[in-house]
Amino acid sequence: MEASWEQSVTNSINTIYLLFSAYLVFVMQIGFAMISAGSVRAKNAMNIMLINVVDAVVGSISFYLFGFAFAYGDSNPFIGTNLFALANIPNGTYDYSFFLYQWAFAIAVAGITSGSIAERTQFSAYLVFSFFLSGFVYPIVAHWVWSSSAWLSASSSEPFLGSGAIDFAGSGVVHLVGAIAGLWGSIIEGPRVGRFDAFGKPIPLRGHNATLVVIGTFLLWFGWFGFNPGSFDKIVVAYPSTSDEGNWTSVGRIAVVTTLAGSTASIVTLFSRRLLIGHWDAMDVCNGLLGGFVDITSGCSVVEPWAAIICGFVSAWILIGLNILALKMNYDDPLEAAQLHGGCGTWGLLFTGLFAKEEFVIQAYNKGDIGVVRPYGLILGGGFGLIGAQTVEIFAIIVWVSATMWPMFYALNRLKLLRISTDEEVAGLDISSHGGYAYTHAYAYQEDNYPRSYANYMHIQDEQS
Amino acid sequence: MEASWEQSVTNSINTIYLLFSAYLVFVMQIGFAMISAGSVRAKNAMNIMLINVVDAVVGSISFYLFGFAFAYGDSNPFIGTNLFALANIPNGTYDYSFFLYQWAFAIAVAGITSGSIAERTQFSAYLVFSFFLSGFVYPIVAHWVWSSSAWLSASSSEPFLGSGAIDFAGSGVVHLVGAIAGLWGSIIEGPRVGRFDAFGKPIPLRGHNATLVVIGTFLLWFGWFGFNPGSFDKIVVAYPSTSDEGNWTSVGRIAVVTTLAGSTASIVTLFSRRLLIGHWDAMDVCNGLLGGFVDITSGCSVVEPWAAIICGFVSAWILIGLNILALKMNYDDPLEAAQLHGGCGTWGLLFTGLFAKEEFVIQAYNKGDIGVVRPYGLILGGGFGLIGAQTVEIFAIIVWVSATMWPMFYALNRLKLLRISTDEEVAGLDISSHGGYAYTHAYAYQEDNYPRSYANYMHIQDEQS
Amino acid sequence: MEASWEQSVTNSINTIYLLFSAYLVFVMQIGFAMISAGSVRAKNAMNIMLINVVDAVVGSISFYLFGFAFAYGDSNPFIGTNLFALANIPNGTYDYSFFLYQWAFAIAVAGITSGSIAERTQFSAYLVFSFFLSGFVYPIVAHWVWSSSAWLSASSSEPFLGSGAIDFAGSGVVHLVGAIAGLWGSIIEGPRVGRFDAFGKPIPLRGHNATLVVIGTFLLWFGWFGFNPGSFDKIVVAYPSTSDEGNWTSVGRIAVVTTLAGSTASIVTLFSRRLLIGHWDAMDVCNGLLGGFVDITSGCSVVEPWAAIICGFVSAWILIGLNILALKMNYDDPLEAAQLHGGCGTWGLLFTGLFAKEEFVIQAYNKGDIGVVRPYGLILGGGFGLIGAQTVEIFAIIVWVSATMWPMFYALNRLKLLRISTDEEVAGLDISSHGGYAYTHAYAYQEDNYPRSYANYMHIQDEQS
Repeated sequence: MEASWEQSVTNSINTIYLLFSAYLVFVMQIGFAMISAGSVRAKNAMNIMLINVVDAVVGSISFYLFGFAFAYGDSNPFIGTNLFALANIPNGTYDYSFFLYQWAFAIAVAGITSGSIAERTQFSAYLVFSFFLSGFVYPIVAHWVWSSSAWLSASSSEPFLGSGAIDFAGSGVVHLVGAIAGLWGSIIEGPRVGRFDAFGKPIPLRGHNATLVVIGTFLLWFGWFGFNPGSFDKIVVAYPSTSDEGNWTSVGRIAVVTTLAGSTASIVTLFSRRLLIGHWDAMDVCNGLLGGFVDITSGCSVVEPWAAIICGFVSAWILIGLNILALKMNYDDPLEAAQLHGGCGTWGLLFTGLFAKEEFVIQAYNKGDIGVVRPYGLILGGGFGLIGAQTVEIFAIIVWVSATMWPMFYALNRLKLLRISTDEEVAGLDISSHGGYAYTHAYAYQEDNYPRSYANYMHIQDEQS
Repeated sequence: MEASWEQSVTNSINTIYLLFSAYLVFVMQIGFAMISAGSVRAKNAMNIMLINVVDAVVGSISFYLFGFAFAYGDSNPFIGTNLFALANIPNGTYDYSFFLYQWAFAIAVAGITSGSIAERTQFSAYLVFSFFLSGFVYPIVAHWVWSSSAWLSASSSEPFLGSGAIDFAGSGVVHLVGAIAGLWGSIIEGPRVGRFDAFGKPIPLRGHNATLVVIGTFLLWFGWFGFNPGSFDKIVVAYPSTSDEGNWTSVGRIAVVTTLAGSTASIVTLFSRRLLIGHWDAMDVCNGLLGGFVDITSGCSVVEPWAAIICGFVSAWILIGLNILALKMNYDDPLEAAQLHGGCGTWGLLFTGLFAKEEFVIQAYNKGDIGVVRPYGLILGGGFGLIGAQTVEIFAIIVWVSATMWPMFYALNRLKLLRISTDEEVAGLDISSHGGYAYTHAYAYQEDNYPRSYANYMHIQDEQS
Repeated sequence: MEASWEQSVTNSINTIYLLFSAYLVFVMQIGFAMISAGSVRAKNAMNIMLINVVDAVVGSISFYLFGFAFAYGDSNPFIGTNLFALANIPNGTYDYSFFLYQWAFAIAVAGITSGSIAERTQFSAYLVFSFFLSGFVYPIVAHWVWSSSAWLSASSSEPFLGSGAIDFAGSGVVHLVGAIAGLWGSIIEGPRVGRFDAFGKPIPLRGHNATLVVIGTFLLWFGWFGFNPGSFDKIVVAYPSTSDEGNWTSVGRIAVVTTLAGSTASIVTLFSRRLLIGHWDAMDVCNGLLGGFVDITSGCSVVEPWAAIICGFVSAWILIGLNILALKMNYDDPLEAAQLHGGCGTWGLLFTGLFAKEEFVIQAYNKGDIGVVRPYGLILGGGFGLIGAQTVEIFAIIVWVSATMWPMFYALNRLKLLRISTDEEVAGLDISSHGGYAYTHAYAYQEDNYPRSYANYMHIQDEQS
């Protein structure tokens, strides 16, 4: 490759690819905001939307000041120590586009966690946790797995277990991290008022607007096209080899694989829930779809389309199972965030360890070098190296996030800074903390817990006649 | 063109162009979902949104398994027989990006049809028809017109009537197919309860949320920037000739031409409806806009901007006329889908036959070869070959879709699997089939058929005083 | 650079970059529509949404026929006189993609103005002003600042004050123009009925749906990624010099700088308003965010990330101050559009004159030529040339827009064509002009002016017990 025009072309193409992918990942923030708003009661809609905006803007500052440095300021296997406040950017490895892409990931993490602790958390507690999570806790994990100098990286010259963990777009780094944080927050806060009766029986607290949930789900799907296919960072390979068609064909395959995993999970959820609860439930289908996306996020670059269908199939049942378990344990997560992002994120990492294809692993992590031997999916005969590294990633994330976020939530709780009072919770966060409701018509705030099944509905009809 | 870097650059640019166009086409699914939701009554909002999600996910599987193969698994002029489940992809002609782009088209077709049969169809019937339409009926038409080996293709080496049909992004292949399917569905089901009184006079059943219609319309506009300009599939021409500036300038022109056709149709609708009904109607303007887009979809690559304005002008009157006709014939299509996508889609195909410019036809379909002679727009002196092929496409679509979809709807109807019961229809699909309403405040489900004109409004004021 | 393939590659990359940026700018129209809809009362939602659609479609026609010619049909320093109806496009300088990108800017201007005169303007007056503003008033300003042949252009061969005004993506050209137009419209129309009581004390007229405001704000953010980073028009530099890395790195920096300015402004607004009014206000945070974006729009290509943070910090206080001032002067602007786009737009121009970095100015406006000396930010030691030109731009815009828009609004008002009657205003525009409400449930139209502070809320609780 000569200098000048060729360089300008290569860099321009990679910049367009990465920046427009970053813009799509940013759209996921809109998706989270709308799903969250629709899934809570009208009296808390303003609160949850403000939280989603604040996630993005607080994350911008904390990730700019430290987060990016901790994640990519390469220097040792555990934490980055350069690039604070974007000093010395652009350099040979990273430029502004890369920062923007990583920023969009960082703000997504706090968005996941906010779902678990919705409808009962003090806004100022939220400011603290959001700054801490996107500026410190998340970047450390991103460093471990995605920075080539770090201990768990699959791109490292001496990878862990000869393999390193393959978490291409972050089933673990993003979704499991957000989920574990939310899990601790929700456990420490306890369920919302009225979520379980005196006998521990769950009482549905329906979200106020299913339309918002659907548009949010679709926007997340749209955004996932940036999240997964964008994670190559570069699409033009400077020195393509004869055995390597370049990233461009992998990028397209990732988009297809992602679509198939989500779609399968969604259909399986639709029919499974129809059998379990007796009606076709739109909200379940939306969550099933998202679960499938969370799953495939880890292995999307290294599996075949047919494997994505297996991935989505299992995913649906994991989410359904965890939701049943959560109810039994009186665990209250208004967005099912811990179940969805945690359960499916964990399965996604294991799935990659089982189904990663040798050819694709070499393509994605060794730039197509011929003759390389490295572990791949256990079921495809690739040995225990990869599945071992995946398992270690799962435990490392659980331990690290628990060790940082649990004390934070615990301390906030002891200081009475975490949960709002029961009076405020009953009145709603919007009127108690945000100066007014999201909607101006009073009737929006009446809670009508409609019967969830047709049988109940007919019963009510009888009583009224 | 040398190997390696040059190939990587060409493929990467084309992949970015096609994938991001596919993402935009996917956004049309969000647009359809929001327009549909806003256009139905609140009691059926959950149902129609679930249907739009299911369209996408069922379409993913059926198009992956068979649909793509029927459409592009080249082998004979009538049906493709390779590429099932993406076997042997990527090959020299097609890759994953191309699949994703075509998938986004396939799921749009069922979205069109769902509008025509909204608010009264059993959900399980919907699952059957969606799978059948996006997996079989639509792909066959796509094969005929878009696969270079097929009988109606304008890229064929021996095109039909020396021309082949020019349906660049699918006024016929996508919109007319969806519309004919919906037309039969709606006719067989009959109008919604209460849509026409005992004397056949129409009673407005207003959609519950105009905001959703507007955001949906805008999202469709956004998506159409992927639908039309993206349909070149490739933007970099490997061997540009001196007479050919390459696709890049055509891609920009298509975006402009699309915008002008839609805008003109929208303005003409605004003023025409003002004269007809006495007020400025936002919903009409939205539908007029979409009608203009549907029109120009066929000829966008081969007409001048001024022609697009003529196209949009006529389009507005076609839609207005068909809507008046539909009411007179007691045809009930909650989204006006058959009128809009069918009427404007048909006009779009004819318009192309009248106004296609010779230079652009050669550029788009002969890769800029000098000295080629082929039919173009009748009004511009291009003879009857093109308009003939366009007319044949229209009839071929009507016959094929009627021959496949009419029996399906008829059979479902005879088996009592098509329409819901009157009780369920009055109660609404959400409470009868989906376990609850889309919104939690009861008052959302009161139907207030507000007076449509100011005169009526003043009258009511008088009565109340 | 050789002919053929190289040219096709360069043009294709630049076309993708510019077209997809244009599509993002178009999304801002959706953002404006949703923010506007959410910020007005439910009885005027249909009206404001129709206006936003009409903006886009009327702007398409007027900008196609004259607007683009006035702006870019180069010939003299004050007005363009070629390229009417896209005659002779594409030529060496401009092509269809460039037109589409500029069109998306033109329609944004009228969208800004519509916010200032919402909830009380006759629809036909809107049609007149929208056509005039996007077809004539705005294009003249665009010509002055952005056409290289014009008197204020920073790319001119003999720039004004040796510098020319640096208004990269249009803090002045777009936002200040729209704001001044809206300011005059709002002043001439006067406040909405009931906005101020007999003693001039403001009475809150809350928007009916905060969810729409939040989704609109996020969509504007998304669109701003096209607005600012897209404004280079080209990303591949044909002949890169050794000192110039090409536009690609600047494009990424602009996206980052834009994000930091908006985020800072948003956070500062959050805390400042918390101190001033006693609660965390989501609507303020949204407007603060947008103010930060408006600010940085002028200088985004020529400032460092740290300067963007200063920019956003000041921005927040300008908007807060102007909103307090507006209330004191009984100025009623339902969207705060004049304060936000005018106040922050003005600050943005001055900020650029203070903080523009020499290296970046040369990179953006002299294509990286070494040895060029030109004015840059005053605070960085760049002299008075740039800040002088910026100030002249501010005054030129204020004078020109006032001289054209004030007479138009004044004449419409004298002819009784501007403001609706009080009866119609109380009833709402939707029922009086548009044939019905946006929502079908009657209770949406009850106005409940909820208490804005928690103190008030507790007081009400007391009274009720």
